[in-house]
Amino acid sequence: MVLATAETTTSLDFGPAVALSCRECGARYDLGPIFACSDCFGPLEVAYAWTPPGDAGAAKVTREQIESGPANIWRYRALLPVPADVASHRNLAPGWTKLVKAENLGRELGLRSLHIKDDSGNPTHSFKDRVVAIALEAARNFGFHTLSCSSTGNLAGAVTAAAARAGLDACVFIPSDLEEAKIVMASVYGGRLVGIDGTYDDVNRFCSELIGDPLGDKWGFVNVNLRPYYAEGSKTLAFEIVEQLGWRLPDQIVIPVASGSQLTKIDKAFKELIALGLVEERPYKIFAAQALGCSPVSAAFKAGHDFVRPVKPDTIAKSLAIGNPADGPYVLDIARRTGGAVEDVTDAEVVDSIRLLARTEGIFAETAGGVTVGVLRKLVANGVLDPDAETVVLNTGDGLKTLDAVSALARPTAVIRPSLDAFRTAIADHS
Amino acid sequence: MVLATAETTTSLDFGPAVALSCRECGARYDLGPIFACSDCFGPLEVAYAWTPPGDAGAAKVTREQIESGPANIWRYRALLPVPADVASHRNLAPGWTKLVKAENLGRELGLRSLHIKDDSGNPTHSFKDRVVAIALEAARNFGFHTLSCSSTGNLAGAVTAAAARAGLDACVFIPSDLEEAKIVMASVYGGRLVGIDGTYDDVNRFCSELIGDPLGDKWGFVNVNLRPYYAEGSKTLAFEIVEQLGWRLPDQIVIPVASGSQLTKIDKAFKELIALGLVEERPYKIFAAQALGCSPVSAAFKAGHDFVRPVKPDTIAKSLAIGNPADGPYVLDIARRTGGAVEDVTDAEVVDSIRLLARTEGIFAETAGGVTVGVLRKLVANGVLDPDAETVVLNTGDGLKTLDAVSALARPTAVIRPSLDAFRTAIADHS
Ligand SMILES: Cc1ncc(COP(=O)(O)O)c(C=O)c1O
Ligand SMILES: Cc1ncc(COP(=O)(O)O)c(C=O)c1O
Ligand SMILES: [Zn+2]
Ligand SMILES: [Zn+2]
Repeated sequence: MVLATAETTTSLDFGPAVALSCRECGARYDLGPIFACSDCFGPLEVAYAWTPPGDAGAAKVTREQIESGPANIWRYRALLPVPADVASHRNLAPGWTKLVKAENLGRELGLRSLHIKDDSGNPTHSFKDRVVAIALEAARNFGFHTLSCSSTGNLAGAVTAAAARAGLDACVFIPSDLEEAKIVMASVYGGRLVGIDGTYDDVNRFCSELIGDPLGDKWGFVNVNLRPYYAEGSKTLAFEIVEQLGWRLPDQIVIPVASGSQLTKIDKAFKELIALGLVEERPYKIFAAQALGCSPVSAAFKAGHDFVRPVKPDTIAKSLAIGNPADGPYVLDIARRTGGAVEDVTDAEVVDSIRLLARTEGIFAETAGGVTVGVLRKLVANGVLDPDAETVVLNTGDGLKTLDAVSALARPTAVIRPSLDAFRTAIADHS
Repeated sequence: MVLATAETTTSLDFGPAVALSCRECGARYDLGPIFACSDCFGPLEVAYAWTPPGDAGAAKVTREQIESGPANIWRYRALLPVPADVASHRNLAPGWTKLVKAENLGRELGLRSLHIKDDSGNPTHSFKDRVVAIALEAARNFGFHTLSCSSTGNLAGAVTAAAARAGLDACVFIPSDLEEAKIVMASVYGGRLVGIDGTYDDVNRFCSELIGDPLGDKWGFVNVNLRPYYAEGSKTLAFEIVEQLGWRLPDQIVIPVASGSQLTKIDKAFKELIALGLVEERPYKIFAAQALGCSPVSAAFKAGHDFVRPVKPDTIAKSLAIGNPADGPYVLDIARRTGGAVEDVTDAEVVDSIRLLARTEGIFAETAGGVTVGVLRKLVANGVLDPDAETVVLNTGDGLKTLDAVSALARPTAVIRPSLDAFRTAIADHS
């Protein structure tokens, strides 16, 4: 293990986390603001006392302890790199969003048991509040006063909101052509919002440069130098789904993919729950969803490759528009290992699926949710998903942030004077 | 008591509710789709077994029972006009939103203990999901197949979403000049959305006509013929605040006023909790908040009137733009009886307050939240609010629905090429 100085080690409190470990070669590092293995350049992940070859009994976490916790992600604090008193820190306390039993949508698609994990209920209305909450604790531990990120839109708002509440500065970076709602949201909380003329991948490359420059080297970039911690936040989606199903693994789950971080950590979380005896082991299949206009992982899956060829994104699903996904190879690996698949849908199917979900379940999803529901529908139609198995589909964002996707179709039936006659005429016209 | 036919009575299940009673003269009516007293035209309210002169012991509801309920409004089902198994019905299960300890905002305003009840976390991101959920159960009881309403924007989306999930038809009415986000949201769930050329008060008058016409007389208008049930939904805001404060009444609460229904029922809920022994009695002050451009209740309060003179609204706080508020006189009465006040703020103060709340607490409120926070600030500055007393302020809606209020001010700090040099220049320009 690479040793940090005694000084930094003693002041850190990452709760049950004990180290970072390389996903590729297993090399271990002290907990620090680092994200790549210096031996093999593999990504670093948070390791716990119970992480193999550790002691599975070390966690001693029970369902009862979790169930008696708060109605947010901190009920899982014993499984996250955060201090025991994290719930009393100033953060947005995301999570514990609804798992909606989707009988109407299930019936339309011919699925016997379908649930939607609806993360639009989070404080800034996307799943990104989860990952930011964990990164924020890491920033506190490491003494960063400025929180930063490269973002496809949702992350920028989640970071600036969390920084506002925590009393930190923020400076976040987005492609300049994002949706209006995401731009306004990312700047209304204060902090600096910088638009970059380019794609998300340009933004991301720029942030990697910035972190090596005196301008940015004292900043906590949640999805760069704090990425190992940040990524752990996605585990809470899996924890909640399992608990909300009555401590049971779903048979099949459909997850959107931008960088692939979320999907990778949901798989990690299922495995941790099994290893800790918190859920009974049984096979589960993980399905990954992309928009056709940015489908490098889906293309690789279909071609049978184990590498991902970068693409230039062109889709209305801007939150998923990462052409060079860092965790793409792991997504391929997980889809194949679990017997899942990676699939994509057109922008027209995204729009259609947003409206289908709204009409059947009263849930207004952003384009990313249109991607997962669209892929769900396609996989059922193609016979790839088992219609009799317990299925969960994620909605990770909010329709109010991507209004343009549906605004041409979601209009008033009629605009009339306030009179019964006018209404009668309008009804006759539209029936 | 006016008797309904045996047929309708036997099939109804309103849980603990036993009758409707006139707020003015106390006349009692069987539970039905009626809203005004036939004796004195006063508004009808839901009465329970324990409603005076009933039996306070009849409820037998304990804190423990409530605490063991679901994380939504159905934890209070024993205090609402809904069947015992309501949680298993298809509805949006709103409520149990966050009560945020607002230390940053409190410090800026000079308040010792401030909490924000943040109802933007509801399924369609406003408090209206609460009232609609109760009205939906009434519609089911009465066999209505179409759900309707007159709306200033939020209600329309809440109704169409709830109807979609419940499998009912919807036909909702709004002023045609609402915010784009509210128009899209109110139509994306399916159902019919009708824009009316006119103010909310015109829309409301039109709906009263429609309900007396064969076109609409079989519809459940959540805020007209189902209003007694609908209104009970606002009680859950008060129940949650009290429970989340650790079963304690707040000293002071700031509530937005459109029709005045929400404020009136929050007061009713506090009184019910006291009567049922669920919270210790102590004085509380209720403060009402309006936008200056639609402040008929505030004007009446300041003039010392006990009636409200209708106005023609002109404010960016469109969700509160009701010029002829049905429950205005009760708001005056409650503010005076509890030692509170009714105050108003300008549109500029609304915008400022939205940004203040976002910057300090990471909460992005709609204009209605800008109104309450603005009034809070004004009341503290004027010495009307006690800075040492425990204060709760409501945010009842979501900033994503009223983007235009802040979009001119919430812009990127800079838009640059992805280069360190460009960033250096931009930083120099903006510091
Ligand atoms: C709404 C939404 N869903 C899903 C994702 C995918 O996240 P990941 O990069 O972890 O694959 C994003 C990423 O920005 C997102 O904004
Ligand atoms: C966001 C919001 N807050 C508050 C209110 C006020 O409700 P009430 O009519 O019960 O006074 C409304 C009404 O439309 C609203 O939309
Ligand atoms: Zn390595
Ligand atoms: Zn009466």
